[in-house]
Amino acid sequence: MTISSVSHTDLVSATAGDVRSAIRSGSYAGHTAGLAAGNLQCNLAILPERFALDFLRFCQRNPKPCPVVGVGDTGNPQLPTLGRGIDIRTDVPKYRVFRNGSLSNEVTDIVDVWADDLVTVALGCSFTFENALLRNGIPVRHSETGKNVPMYRSNIDLVPAGPFGGQMVVTMRPIPEGQVNRTREICSRYPQAHGAPIAVGDPAQIGIADLSRPDWGDAVDIKPGEVPVYWACGVTPQNVLLDAGLPICITHSPGHMLVADVAEDAETTILNTSE
Amino acid sequence: MTISSVSHTDLVSATAGDVRSAIRSGSYAGHTAGLAAGNLQCNLAILPERFALDFLRFCQRNPKPCPVVGVGDTGNPQLPTLGRGIDIRTDVPKYRVFRNGSLSNEVTDIVDVWADDLVTVALGCSFTFENALLRNGIPVRHSETGKNVPMYRSNIDLVPAGPFGGQMVVTMRPIPEGQVNRTREICSRYPQAHGAPIAVGDPAQIGIADLSRPDWGDAVDIKPGEVPVYWACGVTPQNVLLDAGLPICITHSPGHMLVADVAEDAETTILNTSE
Repeated sequence: MTISSVSHTDLVSATAGDVRSAIRSGSYAGHTAGLAAGNLQCNLAILPERFALDFLRFCQRNPKPCPVVGVGDTGNPQLPTLGRGIDIRTDVPKYRVFRNGSLSNEVTDIVDVWADDLVTVALGCSFTFENALLRNGIPVRHSETGKNVPMYRSNIDLVPAGPFGGQMVVTMRPIPEGQVNRTREICSRYPQAHGAPIAVGDPAQIGIADLSRPDWGDAVDIKPGEVPVYWACGVTPQNVLLDAGLPICITHSPGHMLVADVAEDAETTILNTSE
Repeated sequence: MTISSVSHTDLVSATAGDVRSAIRSGSYAGHTAGLAAGNLQCNLAILPERFALDFLRFCQRNPKPCPVVGVGDTGNPQLPTLGRGIDIRTDVPKYRVFRNGSLSNEVTDIVDVWADDLVTVALGCSFTFENALLRNGIPVRHSETGKNVPMYRSNIDLVPAGPFGGQMVVTMRPIPEGQVNRTREICSRYPQAHGAPIAVGDPAQIGIADLSRPDWGDAVDIKPGEVPVYWACGVTPQNVLLDAGLPICITHSPGHMLVADVAEDAETTILNTSE
């Protein structure tokens, strides 16, 4: 891989390793949606070891918004269970560095920020079940229309752990009424990617006042015969980390994920697990 | 619940809460197989907080032998995500207390052993998928014959974390050849209970010399037309904890599990998760 610029299209059918190489070398710094098709992509939360036990407890207690798919050793930037040769300091296109609960800066590597006490937690993301829906002929509106998925603060309380708690953030996708059960069935096969929907129908039941005004992302149309379907969202742990006001924590930038060697439909997210 | 003695039969159709009350009051101290039918039962690992992060990392990296279904707060004997009012010091019929890697004693409560730095980790167990196999008409030989499942040390390396590592312990159940695929399909729905089998057929492929001589449990017959099928086993984390030689760790005694309020076929092992 040279350091000449590489396009998104070039990387759609690349291996996960080639995608990470292109990112690491600075050849590619865009979003990762659709790259290395079929591979697991991960949300990132990097935090000091002294908060890591509570954060893992928090994720265990809230598995739908926070499905843990990989955890690094303290101070070690590798994630061998997710991919060969991953260096989490360089292999994600864009990172957000937060200090004391506020965004400090957005960077393309965290080599200078990395420290011996940091622990990387990788979390599953919605790309996995969206791809499964598309493979099964179920439409994903925001993808069709080139928008970001609409995300909303809900009133669903999270189960707290240590300094971590709050309410769940959810995504919404309009689904034809006759395909809601099939959608539930498909998504429940992906516990590593938010699993089955958490609610269907009236947004008020989960504390959403107005679907046309998402808290993040873009509003999408709900067509006649479609119902809004809600999933736990990976923005949840990011918000929770921010609210906890950690001295430092690092996440990926939205849409700029870690691309793993693990297949998105593997039984576990651990590389080389015997079957 | 009075403190008069209660039989196993009395508790088969009891609620999980009633089972725990009977155990807590000293009315019942037997094994839990079949109790509060339909409820999740859990293996236990209780260890000092300073080892808990590494142990959770170990479990995350080895999800088939070590499926985490609940984690307590440090020093707190409750497990509210698994059941209302659980007190882990009294609600399991029999415990094993290990000190420096050796069995210290077997007790019916750990009130005197409990300490402010202990963390409880609850792990899924094979009862869950065995019940699912039985519901689907697939025989479970050791249950039919009133034996313990045969368990074997395999040569399958675990992914290490901190002081924790070694090889996987596996269980074996003979399955009619024509039902192996269906068995795989059913068990893969229970990632919280060891998931799909890890191997089928020749025991030598996973380092087992002689199926008639299990390392734990009882040998079972393999009838004509059946093949041996192997699953990751919950004895794995217990062995790994022992080998790590922790100053103290506490497990349930084999067959004497924590009975949770969570349904064994729930999408997550977290009580009251919105669906």
